[in-house]
Amino acid sequence: MNDDKLYAMRHSLAHILASALQQLYPEVKFGVGPVIENGFYYDVYIKNKNLSEKDFPAIEKKMHEIIKENQQFIKYTKTINEAMDWAHQNDQVFKLELLEILKKYGTTSYKDIKVTKEATTGVQEVSFYKNGDFIDLCKGPHLSSTGKVKEFKLVKISGAYWRGDAKNKQLQRIYGVAFETKEELLNYLKSQEEAKNNDHRRLGRELDLFTFSNLVGSGLPLFTPRGTIIREELLNYSAQLRLEKGFQKVFIPHITRDELYKVSGHLDKFGDELFLVRSQETKDRLVLKPMNCPHHSQIYASRQRSYRDLPIRYLETTTVYRDEKSGELGGLNRVRSITQDDSHIFCTEDQIEYEINQIFLMIKELYEQFDIPLKVRLSLKNDQKKYLGTDEVWRRAQEELEKVININKMNYFVAEGEATFYGPKIDFIGVDSLDREHQVATIQLDFIQPIRFGLEYDNIDGSKRNPIMIHSALLGSVERFMSIYIEHVGGKFPVWVAPEQIRFLMLNQSKEVQKYVKNIETQVAKLGLRAEIDDENSSISKKIRNAELMKIPYIVVIGNDEVKTNKLLPRIRKDLILNISQNNKSISLEDFLKHVKNEHINRSKQSTI
Amino acid sequence: MNDDKLYAMRHSLAHILASALQQLYPEVKFGVGPVIENGFYYDVYIKNKNLSEKDFPAIEKKMHEIIKENQQFIKYTKTINEAMDWAHQNDQVFKLELLEILKKYGTTSYKDIKVTKEATTGVQEVSFYKNGDFIDLCKGPHLSSTGKVKEFKLVKISGAYWRGDAKNKQLQRIYGVAFETKEELLNYLKSQEEAKNNDHRRLGRELDLFTFSNLVGSGLPLFTPRGTIIREELLNYSAQLRLEKGFQKVFIPHITRDELYKVSGHLDKFGDELFLVRSQETKDRLVLKPMNCPHHSQIYASRQRSYRDLPIRYLETTTVYRDEKSGELGGLNRVRSITQDDSHIFCTEDQIEYEINQIFLMIKELYEQFDIPLKVRLSLKNDQKKYLGTDEVWRRAQEELEKVININKMNYFVAEGEATFYGPKIDFIGVDSLDREHQVATIQLDFIQPIRFGLEYDNIDGSKRNPIMIHSALLGSVERFMSIYIEHVGGKFPVWVAPEQIRFLMLNQSKEVQKYVKNIETQVAKLGLRAEIDDENSSISKKIRNAELMKIPYIVVIGNDEVKTNKLLPRIRKDLILNISQNNKSISLEDFLKHVKNEHINRSKQSTI
Repeated sequence: MNDDKLYAMRHSLAHILASALQQLYPEVKFGVGPVIENGFYYDVYIKNKNLSEKDFPAIEKKMHEIIKENQQFIKYTKTINEAMDWAHQNDQVFKLELLEILKKYGTTSYKDIKVTKEATTGVQEVSFYKNGDFIDLCKGPHLSSTGKVKEFKLVKISGAYWRGDAKNKQLQRIYGVAFETKEELLNYLKSQEEAKNNDHRRLGRELDLFTFSNLVGSGLPLFTPRGTIIREELLNYSAQLRLEKGFQKVFIPHITRDELYKVSGHLDKFGDELFLVRSQETKDRLVLKPMNCPHHSQIYASRQRSYRDLPIRYLETTTVYRDEKSGELGGLNRVRSITQDDSHIFCTEDQIEYEINQIFLMIKELYEQFDIPLKVRLSLKNDQKKYLGTDEVWRRAQEELEKVININKMNYFVAEGEATFYGPKIDFIGVDSLDREHQVATIQLDFIQPIRFGLEYDNIDGSKRNPIMIHSALLGSVERFMSIYIEHVGGKFPVWVAPEQIRFLMLNQSKEVQKYVKNIETQVAKLGLRAEIDDENSSISKKIRNAELMKIPYIVVIGNDEVKTNKLLPRIRKDLILNISQNNKSISLEDFLKHVKNEHINRSKQSTI
Repeated sequence: MNDDKLYAMRHSLAHILASALQQLYPEVKFGVGPVIENGFYYDVYIKNKNLSEKDFPAIEKKMHEIIKENQQFIKYTKTINEAMDWAHQNDQVFKLELLEILKKYGTTSYKDIKVTKEATTGVQEVSFYKNGDFIDLCKGPHLSSTGKVKEFKLVKISGAYWRGDAKNKQLQRIYGVAFETKEELLNYLKSQEEAKNNDHRRLGRELDLFTFSNLVGSGLPLFTPRGTIIREELLNYSAQLRLEKGFQKVFIPHITRDELYKVSGHLDKFGDELFLVRSQETKDRLVLKPMNCPHHSQIYASRQRSYRDLPIRYLETTTVYRDEKSGELGGLNRVRSITQDDSHIFCTEDQIEYEINQIFLMIKELYEQFDIPLKVRLSLKNDQKKYLGTDEVWRRAQEELEKVININKMNYFVAEGEATFYGPKIDFIGVDSLDREHQVATIQLDFIQPIRFGLEYDNIDGSKRNPIMIHSALLGSVERFMSIYIEHVGGKFPVWVAPEQIRFLMLNQSKEVQKYVKNIETQVAKLGLRAEIDDENSSISKKIRNAELMKIPYIVVIGNDEVKTNKLLPRIRKDLILNISQNNKSISLEDFLKHVKNEHINRSKQSTI
């Protein structure tokens, strides 16, 4: 089944779902029922009836009956006025509204309406699809008949505002998934189950990584000691890659006069997402920074610069703030206080290619370390949005970016309209172990801000020139990266990231064992390893279970035998084992700790024991 | 001359200054003229005349005449009404206002008026002092006659609002300094000159450590790469001391719902100093955090805690925000975005003494490292302000703090009214190389917030108990500490703090020298040292001068001789030399770098070459 067929099948299933609902609840009013990734949904409204997942078996049964009847999908057209009559007669109020908008604007997308206003002509004719007694306003395509659909399952129900607007009536959205084969369907359902178990919010709680407080507010995570270790390891790694390449750390305040963003052009762009800060002592109009580039430009501007000083590469792990509706917040993937591993390079035109390529290589290295494959997106401007700068400047910037992608022999795809307002960029899409895609790193070229801020350098010929700015981030938002990474590894962190690398379990409280454990503590502290001692008065099997639940890389039981022989039998977390002989390998305490230390320093992905 | 005598002399000089002004400018209206550290001032208003430092010689001349005349200081009293008549007749409007307030409130301090309201009885009688033709409302004391005063100098003039209120008229404040001997006066003036040269704002600019931007706003410093290195070295040192003692890093957002501070009790306390944050997307009432303890309490509260888990020690280098009137801002000593090396310990009552003592020892170690002697202040509550908690709780807390000070055999002084609203504290006052005192570290005991936040732990007997909180900071505000430290060392940082530890100066551009310098760069990078190469096309003497201006610990010239013999002659910054034989000592590149590396690791105060 090719993609078009799969699309048509999922679309047909949306109609079959709607047919079933019409038979079960004749009062039902239909919103829209599109195809989505892996399946479809339909938005519906039934007066005095709140559907729940308990209703799914009955609905699915009815859908299977309709499939068995092998009803033909018949397409026909009506004029827009005939169609409105049909909607009116059938009391399909939502369809009627869509038709009215279509008639007026020629589109039903709020976004498109905003752009086109009444410039385009309205629609004159619309198409319908009919199967059995069910008729729907629909562009198609569909399968030829209901009997052609393969495997499907209803999976979820949720609230959805009509046309995505919280001011409108709330409908119910019924989600289904559909695949060609039973196997694909089961695989998909299994991976969903796994995703649920790997949900970073759940793991964050179970592994004690972060927390939220109602007193502090939504979208504002607090990182516990364990979560803070992960943050720091990730951020130190990202910083280290750049420090080795001549980047320098800087430090800026999180608030600023809004004037800074008037000059940069961000104020228009970020509008509602800005947190406004009110000084009670002065008349300053302050904001929480949504971006760091303007601040960094002010450090550049603090001294006279010469071509000999360039490139200047600033690096800073700092927080930006973007306001979000509370409803959008949950876990670490969408927060209001966002820590970025941000960098800004100020360079000459001649240096652009080298600098971008350096960052490109760092990004590749970093995501290889995390075993996250990357897709490359070249994000360009489109004709609809507002951008700063001339076409010539944009064309040059785009060429530079394409050149570096090609040097690195990477495939890429183009996304028009995804550029920043100051220039085109390369975005990196990480694909996680559950095959989900996440936008992660970015490299952005900017010929505009240096001019707006009047940044200059003295060129070799004595003339004044504007430097070029290159914005980049490797992890992007560390909170978002953590949400991805925690789920990607299912909480099973490699030694260098693991908040607790080793847990020693005391088999008993004998003097010998106690003394040995004291020695362990000294050695562990000297090496700077992250190890804990479990000296609770409980069974060893319970201790092992507890340590396993915390997904600790190494678990080591210390009893009289271990003390006598100084031979330990570390239990290595399964995913860290490459070679079966690593199981039950005995090793002295000193060697064991040395191995773990080296794994930490080298950021090893596997156990070296 | 004892302190009382010195006080009387400075006070008498204020009157002599006023006498001189009255003779020179008969129109002059007098505000107040108190004694201050090292001298005195008088606030005056002269219609249509703006005094400047150019007028000082004439004023000083007149003062010397008055001193020569050896006028008696004669004290007498008037009833408050007589005094008001006097002020009225002499058109001394400010004195009249003071007398009116005195009559009503019995005090002229805004603060005291607020507290006492009209509860106390007004003053019935006031004292005056007369010398020559000059009469002043004054409590005394004074010397017996003007001839008794010793050495003085007028030093500064500045604007000052009447009674410190920006809504009032602006007067001119003339500052003078006075000492018993010429030598003391000259020493003081010299140290002032030195302070000017060591001014951290000046050094910050010259050594390229930080900058301000009008677009970003006042009180919001931006740290350049060099300044950021100093920040990080200081903060890493402070964190390291605590990590070694079982503290754990955490990370919290900088904004919060104001509800958090309602519960903690900070909202009342900080009032005007709070930056209010407005969300445009939600109805959340947010603020920028002025304190970290409530956030940390929420991390504690995120899990059930047992007595076995205590003490829990959180450590975080993070920023708090305190709004300030723009006029108060300047340099790093008073900023609106304050980075604290903050810690909070949650412990049982039995653990208090051990925990406080641990912090005490760390503070002593840290300030010894910086060669900053400490004075210890025990800050207690007084009867005027509002505090949380019972007297019994406060008594216990005070005892704990005194016990630890005594264990450490430190002298201390008591300051009533300097406690926080939640408990007493030990404050540490650092004395810098110019003998100025600065409040730096702090240890605060808190029995209150854990109760307000409902923090608990399961005690050994199964009961629920509230932990005790201990707040502490070693550096305090790192911005403020930097302002102190930069001036304390006059920008001459030890190797471990210095942004640039070594500068290599190329004597020529020969192939040999270039190759040798390449090797230097590789070795320096491997060791993680902070070194720069000066390869400019200028004279070696100019290069040396430039490097000396940057106060770099080691300056090394690389010419053909050095390349041939691999013997370097490092120029060591004078203050780092202990032994004269360190001058002109030749050393191989490898040994030299090893020495510097070790000095960095060991935080050596002196050169080990």
